[in-house]
Amino acid sequence: MLYLVGIGLDSEKDITLKGLEAVRSSEKIYLEEYTSQLSVPVSQLEQLYGKEVVRADRETIQDRKGTIVEEARSGNISVLVIGDALSATTHVDLLQTAKERQVGCTVIHNASIMTAVSVCGLPLYNYGQTVSIPFFTEKWMPESFYDRIVANKQRGLHTLCLLDIKVKERDEDGGYRPSRFMSVSDAARQILFVAQKRKDGAIEDSTVGVGLARIGTQTEAIHPATLAQLAETDLGAPLHSLVIPGSVTVYEKEFYEKMFSFSQFT
Amino acid sequence: MLYLVGIGLDSEKDITLKGLEAVRSSEKIYLEEYTSQLSVPVSQLEQLYGKEVVRADRETIQDRKGTIVEEARSGNISVLVIGDALSATTHVDLLQTAKERQVGCTVIHNASIMTAVSVCGLPLYNYGQTVSIPFFTEKWMPESFYDRIVANKQRGLHTLCLLDIKVKERDEDGGYRPSRFMSVSDAARQILFVAQKRKDGAIEDSTVGVGLARIGTQTEAIHPATLAQLAETDLGAPLHSLVIPGSVTVYEKEFYEKMFSFSQFT
Repeated sequence: MLYLVGIGLDSEKDITLKGLEAVRSSEKIYLEEYTSQLSVPVSQLEQLYGKEVVRADRETIQDRKGTIVEEARSGNISVLVIGDALSATTHVDLLQTAKERQVGCTVIHNASIMTAVSVCGLPLYNYGQTVSIPFFTEKWMPESFYDRIVANKQRGLHTLCLLDIKVKERDEDGGYRPSRFMSVSDAARQILFVAQKRKDGAIEDSTVGVGLARIGTQTEAIHPATLAQLAETDLGAPLHSLVIPGSVTVYEKEFYEKMFSFSQFT
Repeated sequence: MLYLVGIGLDSEKDITLKGLEAVRSSEKIYLEEYTSQLSVPVSQLEQLYGKEVVRADRETIQDRKGTIVEEARSGNISVLVIGDALSATTHVDLLQTAKERQVGCTVIHNASIMTAVSVCGLPLYNYGQTVSIPFFTEKWMPESFYDRIVANKQRGLHTLCLLDIKVKERDEDGGYRPSRFMSVSDAARQILFVAQKRKDGAIEDSTVGVGLARIGTQTEAIHPATLAQLAETDLGAPLHSLVIPGSVTVYEKEFYEKMFSFSQFT
């Protein structure tokens, strides 16, 4: 059996009992850690599971998916995914490969930033399409995230922006660059950069964003402010995300006043 | 401390270790069961926790939120929520009330249908706004869900439709009606009812939907078919949901062919 096990947003204790049973019954445990970032050392997982955890990068999971599925033919194999179990295409790929090769596959779901974002007090029902904001480079500055935020906003919908993660990026010498995690201030600066180019009035310095850091962990931070302010705000260690609110009701404004002493919604 | 504990989609074993610690440390445990439906008897939860679980209906949670928060001032109180911990306004209300009254509140996240829907093979990034489809009555047939599905579809986005649940509905004699859970076939019929009225060509009998039943449980069913077919299909016990796909890529079509032998996407 191949288990795809979501391990949630925080520590080793965010695994479900069902997930823990699967992991403890497994001969081999892979940890997928290129689409997200664990907030505890891998050794804490190993101590809880009583087993070794094999850290798997993009190449291991994508290129060896056939091998992983074949390993699961004769015994139990777990692939741990930070957040929910099927948050990236790679994981859906594993499910499909298992089905094609007639190897059993069980998905064990868990919390994801895509629902945990509800702690910021804006109801999940009023979010439009989620966007990913990639790190700009000198040569590559895609703007599609901006259009999606504006399209959501025009319909009154909030946007959850997932921020770029660069893990095991190759450098010119064939080695790896240090990991990079986009911060709320990076994201706010990139959004304002596009807004200033467009001058369409849809997003301005005074547009409100809600900076989110380490959601689901003990050091969680939720910081509503204008994008100009967020561009200058350091919310500390990764992972960060950013919400751009659409229409905000009286009820939600009250929530922001009471929870965060924030009243700058226009 | 007030713990808002998501308990996931399936059995008592879907609680996280962190959630279980919170529950076992609590003097009183409420189960909110009017926005979703547990797939196991409450006794299975009680056996695992070693404690009594108090079933709470809408009145208990909404009208007594002040009392619940005050109970949490002097000891630990857990409110169990099926799915993720903040899936309904009521739960966000509890968080706000705790903050206002300066009582500590910890949210323990878990899986939700809003991300577990990824098992149907359509990437979460391509969903638009989630819609709720309410049971039509003779006098009340709102159509806003239809407009939202069409608005998503026109942007190429998928729609997750959450289907109505009627628990502890009052009858004319002041008693309660039996609980009702909207099925995929009910939902498909209501969507087609509106489509036939509108005749806007946006949704037709041949439009594809993906019926989902008991997602995250061992008896999970994923059934892609035309809406006309889904209107006649019985996917068994609750809970059901329905996805109306927007644009479907070649890659996703291949997934449907391989996983479900389904190739009716147009």
